[in-house]
Amino acid sequence: MPESHSPLHPLALAPVIAPPSTADEFVERFLHNLNFDRGVALSASSANDRYLALAHTVRDYLMARWLEDVRHQKEVQAKGVCYLSAEYLLGRQLDNNLLAADLTEVAGEALASCGVSLDELRAHEVEPGLGNGGLGRLAACFIDSLATMAVPSIGYGIRYEYGIFRQTFVDGQQVEQPDAWLALGSPWEFARPEDAQTIAFGGRTEKYDDDGVTRSRWVPAWNVQAVPYNYMVPGFRNGRVNTLRLWSAVATSAFDLRIFNSGDYEEAVRAQTFAENISKVLYPEDSTPQGKELRLQQQYFFVAASIHDFLDNMLADGFDLANLPERVIFQLNDTHPVIAVPEFMRVLVDEKHLEWDAAWAITQQCFAYTCHTLLPEALEVWPVELLGRLLPRHLEIIYRINDEFLVAVRERFGDDEMLVRNMSIIAEHPERSVRMAYLATVAGAKVNGVAELHSQLLRDKVLHDFDAFFPGKFTNVTNGVTPRRFLRLANPELSSLITAAIGDGWTTELERLHELEPFADDAEFRSAFARVKAANKRRLSEVLRERDGVEISDGHMLDVMVKRLHEYKRQLLKVLHIVTTYEGVISGRIAVSDVVPRTAIFGAKAAPGYAMAKRIIHLINAVGEVVNTDPRLEGRLKVVFPPNYNVTLAERVIPAADLSEQISLAGKEASGTGNMKFALNGALTIGTDDGANVEIRELVGDDNFYLFGMSEPEVEALSTRGYRPQEFYQGR
Amino acid sequence: MPESHSPLHPLALAPVIAPPSTADEFVERFLHNLNFDRGVALSASSANDRYLALAHTVRDYLMARWLEDVRHQKEVQAKGVCYLSAEYLLGRQLDNNLLAADLTEVAGEALASCGVSLDELRAHEVEPGLGNGGLGRLAACFIDSLATMAVPSIGYGIRYEYGIFRQTFVDGQQVEQPDAWLALGSPWEFARPEDAQTIAFGGRTEKYDDDGVTRSRWVPAWNVQAVPYNYMVPGFRNGRVNTLRLWSAVATSAFDLRIFNSGDYEEAVRAQTFAENISKVLYPEDSTPQGKELRLQQQYFFVAASIHDFLDNMLADGFDLANLPERVIFQLNDTHPVIAVPEFMRVLVDEKHLEWDAAWAITQQCFAYTCHTLLPEALEVWPVELLGRLLPRHLEIIYRINDEFLVAVRERFGDDEMLVRNMSIIAEHPERSVRMAYLATVAGAKVNGVAELHSQLLRDKVLHDFDAFFPGKFTNVTNGVTPRRFLRLANPELSSLITAAIGDGWTTELERLHELEPFADDAEFRSAFARVKAANKRRLSEVLRERDGVEISDGHMLDVMVKRLHEYKRQLLKVLHIVTTYEGVISGRIAVSDVVPRTAIFGAKAAPGYAMAKRIIHLINAVGEVVNTDPRLEGRLKVVFPPNYNVTLAERVIPAADLSEQISLAGKEASGTGNMKFALNGALTIGTDDGANVEIRELVGDDNFYLFGMSEPEVEALSTRGYRPQEFYQGR
Repeated sequence: MPESHSPLHPLALAPVIAPPSTADEFVERFLHNLNFDRGVALSASSANDRYLALAHTVRDYLMARWLEDVRHQKEVQAKGVCYLSAEYLLGRQLDNNLLAADLTEVAGEALASCGVSLDELRAHEVEPGLGNGGLGRLAACFIDSLATMAVPSIGYGIRYEYGIFRQTFVDGQQVEQPDAWLALGSPWEFARPEDAQTIAFGGRTEKYDDDGVTRSRWVPAWNVQAVPYNYMVPGFRNGRVNTLRLWSAVATSAFDLRIFNSGDYEEAVRAQTFAENISKVLYPEDSTPQGKELRLQQQYFFVAASIHDFLDNMLADGFDLANLPERVIFQLNDTHPVIAVPEFMRVLVDEKHLEWDAAWAITQQCFAYTCHTLLPEALEVWPVELLGRLLPRHLEIIYRINDEFLVAVRERFGDDEMLVRNMSIIAEHPERSVRMAYLATVAGAKVNGVAELHSQLLRDKVLHDFDAFFPGKFTNVTNGVTPRRFLRLANPELSSLITAAIGDGWTTELERLHELEPFADDAEFRSAFARVKAANKRRLSEVLRERDGVEISDGHMLDVMVKRLHEYKRQLLKVLHIVTTYEGVISGRIAVSDVVPRTAIFGAKAAPGYAMAKRIIHLINAVGEVVNTDPRLEGRLKVVFPPNYNVTLAERVIPAADLSEQISLAGKEASGTGNMKFALNGALTIGTDDGANVEIRELVGDDNFYLFGMSEPEVEALSTRGYRPQEFYQGR
Repeated sequence: MPESHSPLHPLALAPVIAPPSTADEFVERFLHNLNFDRGVALSASSANDRYLALAHTVRDYLMARWLEDVRHQKEVQAKGVCYLSAEYLLGRQLDNNLLAADLTEVAGEALASCGVSLDELRAHEVEPGLGNGGLGRLAACFIDSLATMAVPSIGYGIRYEYGIFRQTFVDGQQVEQPDAWLALGSPWEFARPEDAQTIAFGGRTEKYDDDGVTRSRWVPAWNVQAVPYNYMVPGFRNGRVNTLRLWSAVATSAFDLRIFNSGDYEEAVRAQTFAENISKVLYPEDSTPQGKELRLQQQYFFVAASIHDFLDNMLADGFDLANLPERVIFQLNDTHPVIAVPEFMRVLVDEKHLEWDAAWAITQQCFAYTCHTLLPEALEVWPVELLGRLLPRHLEIIYRINDEFLVAVRERFGDDEMLVRNMSIIAEHPERSVRMAYLATVAGAKVNGVAELHSQLLRDKVLHDFDAFFPGKFTNVTNGVTPRRFLRLANPELSSLITAAIGDGWTTELERLHELEPFADDAEFRSAFARVKAANKRRLSEVLRERDGVEISDGHMLDVMVKRLHEYKRQLLKVLHIVTTYEGVISGRIAVSDVVPRTAIFGAKAAPGYAMAKRIIHLINAVGEVVNTDPRLEGRLKVVFPPNYNVTLAERVIPAADLSEQISLAGKEASGTGNMKFALNGALTIGTDDGANVEIRELVGDDNFYLFGMSEPEVEALSTRGYRPQEFYQGR
């Protein structure tokens, strides 16, 4: 850094540029970036050149605010959020950033004056494949909202080289392809190789004498470099830009040249392959021991890098660590980042030499935990053997946290060994394992579920004893979605209609949509709404024709079920509904003229190792093949299953939907966020009393919600015979 | 590309920016790039940020000229050079580009006004490791000269991810480390993933009927993507910027996600590893079969990509291929790119459907071949088995070229089977192989050696029969070096002294240095020259102290031998001279006071598989350890061997040298270019009558050249007993 006493050029003090007033200014910047960054003249440019230059230009307009926010946050040291998440399902960036910077119209006009189509460049963007489902999209919505609400915050995660797989269908069956989302360049990221962190693994621990104090230290066996890439997270027209920092794994010592020159090319790049695997794909299959280990490596890799980054780079010089609770909350998005708790303790105790008790008191105020599930298999446990081998010092720390916690449990609840065993962070059966959700619960200042029902079930069942032990720790924060992306951007015509009716305050204060209620009785509004819906269907039909060669018939009800493929979500139930209808017509039980013309749209990826989910995909495609071609249906029932459902497709499907399918087995869906996006776009919901469906039903009313199936207590009662959902951890 | 009838914004027609007039303008651009490209404020920037922003800024000033030259070359379609070379030993780019754009002073002043040191940023640049020795540096000098002489040209090569290895010494022995020259970012390159070429390998050929014409086609088995990266090659202050285009290999279908998810991570990335190996390192060891195959893959990879790139992107629409000889010459830098000849024929005949004879007539006018060696082991041959397996169609084409050529030989010289066998492109013993130098000689419009003596030996010995068959085809083009980098930049004080004496015309017309001759008698000039030399020695001493912790004693003669480590170059002879002197003093044969104070400086990398060269390195270091620490020498003899000799170090060593060691065994060094750089910087030469030494001696006179050792005929006479240099090809 230049020395502070050096004379600074005046311009160095004023890097902020003013927002654009004219399309000409935008053109000038666009051409500047095309010429000087891509190194081509407009007349010789490719679509990729023009897309990258446009992205760079939009970035430029946000840059001054970003630099200012980074500086300001460092200077003010106000309390902020470090959001730790293994996923960020961002969706495309161009439109969102154009919207945030209020540049959409100017950009369109500017490009048109150069003979360039904004729509063509929009279509050129490859969606970052950094998330899987609701948890990842929630993370993306949260960082968007934090920026819009001007909360100082930084998101931390992993820059997967190949994100979630690209789904294709071969003979109706899912085939996974790597999603090379970075291949054509990645204009929204800023590589910071000079800010790399070294992340250690393996080895052993040892005690040593430090001036009369016995301390522990970790002597690791190997390490990798974590290289950060920064992304802008702009608030909605509020001049705030937060940061998302994603880590990429690279080998510390590249490859072994000696072995390479001996001709064994694979052996030579083994260390590199090994290191780069860590950020290769999101959620590698973990049914193999290697896969399990790789997942733990991923988790530790990104939280360790993030904690060190925060402590090294975000704090003011000479910051007193005792004040950390006034400075930061590390929000743990599900169990994936929970290994951050012992890492944080290790840094405070082993590296910063704080007393254990002081460090623990700080830790308990600096972490908060969001639980996203009630499914036992989704509450991670790590075998002690694996964790001790990969992170030996962390296992020691977890043991000590647990020992002290169980002493307190005994003091409070007496020597109830069954209770103690049930509350122990360490499970003993079938193998000794660390229950990460328990660790997060013990360490967290707050623990929240993601819908009223889910939070209640957490308190009542999954973490019942902890609720008794930590009164007030459990809270509910029902998931949310950003109305900017999922209404304003995805459904511009409905947005305009709403804004015309009630003003545009709803884009940042969603409650104001209540003001629309009187318009339910306004015939003109209702017919305008119907026209918007019809237009959205036509637009979806065009998208699907271009993308997959299928069309949607005019006048069909769009009955949509888009979400991860999972048995509890019950796509199977939906396809059985289609089969039943089909069979009814064929058998003559139902007159074909009584079938409401309906297109069922599915969108779903199955985890690569989840055989049953893949069979359900195959079934849906097979049913579609039969139903779609049988003339006896007279075209009144169609099944459309576009492959590779992602945020980009969601933004087209949801605004066109008439009926939103939210039919999970009650008590299984923690919240759902897709359900909210459909409701926001005016679809009716058919759903169970599950997750956030409950609250949606309260808000939209029974007129707009077809309640379906058993309630959670009914499911519970039914399942007691053979299925015990209270047993969330093996060995409990 | 925007449609031509679309209205274009006026700015789109005028992307050219004017050169800077003030430091303030430079500051503005520098801060712009720091803020908008790196995404940091100056106060928060790292040295790497500032270096990258500076490089970007220098780039900006060259950009308008580059865009204009690219456009102009495409429009005018004047004849140009496609220079094909496996190496470009570029050296650092920043200073060269500052010089070319005449920005050095402005940049220094501008940065200082921001509190930033230009020298610090200079030191931050990592030299691109894309070359090995003289051949690679010659390629870099040639493209620099072509740009300065305003010759339309494009350099084609490989973007090695890890260039030539980084040399370290452990216990005096060479240990190779990968040279991760790209790790901190590469601001001089422009990735063009959208211009990737698909390069095929393996498979088989087949005949097919094309409307009554029987044609051949290649059905390959696998392929890789060649992604181009463009580099600017600015002329010296002449407003010209040519292009260097280097190819990077990436897998066509990334990695196998299914295998990855099964936990076999190495198997999953095998195809990727396999493809990316092609551009992983320069000159992988080729003593193994895998290494040999990898080298042929590298060679075909880059020439095939380059030929397709030229034909696809450089020619005007509807270009008549019959006119190619008026449009392009492909200059083959040694045998590495010779596989371009059958590839060019394949494209013309199989893809463009030209008649064989017409295609061959074009080819013979479109290629020229520079031979860089007389050493049999450096004249590549490819086993027919390997070439046929990797490039089956090319082998067929080579056979046909050879068949027709040998028919012509018989017509001309009669049925002298020994002569025919000696001239055949196919060698029969010890295994059937393709002699790439013969192929290049048959195809080339011109064949040149790289010094008078070398060209003579080519004509007289190595390619004697070809000279008889192709009268006038053989020429000489003695190697050259760019005085901009190796005098102007490397030795600014001597440059100023020369310019003060004769003006600065010498930077582009080197012959004008003759005008200095009268100053040899000018005492003032001579003492100024001595001061410059002394200052350069002090500067070198500082560099070596910082770099390696060694210093050069005042008053020592600097006796320098820097070049690849090779037996024929005879570093061994030089170290024996040191040993002899040392032994003379220790044994009392030489009075220590008679030893001229001398520091012998070595700089040399040994090829990783070249055991004898590595032993010589070990010997030099061992001798240095003894000599440097023996007090009986009274510090009058020192050996300094800084590891990892490269262009950056050369630019410090050469201007400080008193004596230039050019003592190769006569008849072995094709030319040498180091010898020229020393002479240019006023060192005396001790050398054999070999390579360009001969011409240097003619130019500098016997006063400045200590002739040493046997002449080439004497060596020849001596070696006839057991060594037959006329047998250049095994099996001849």
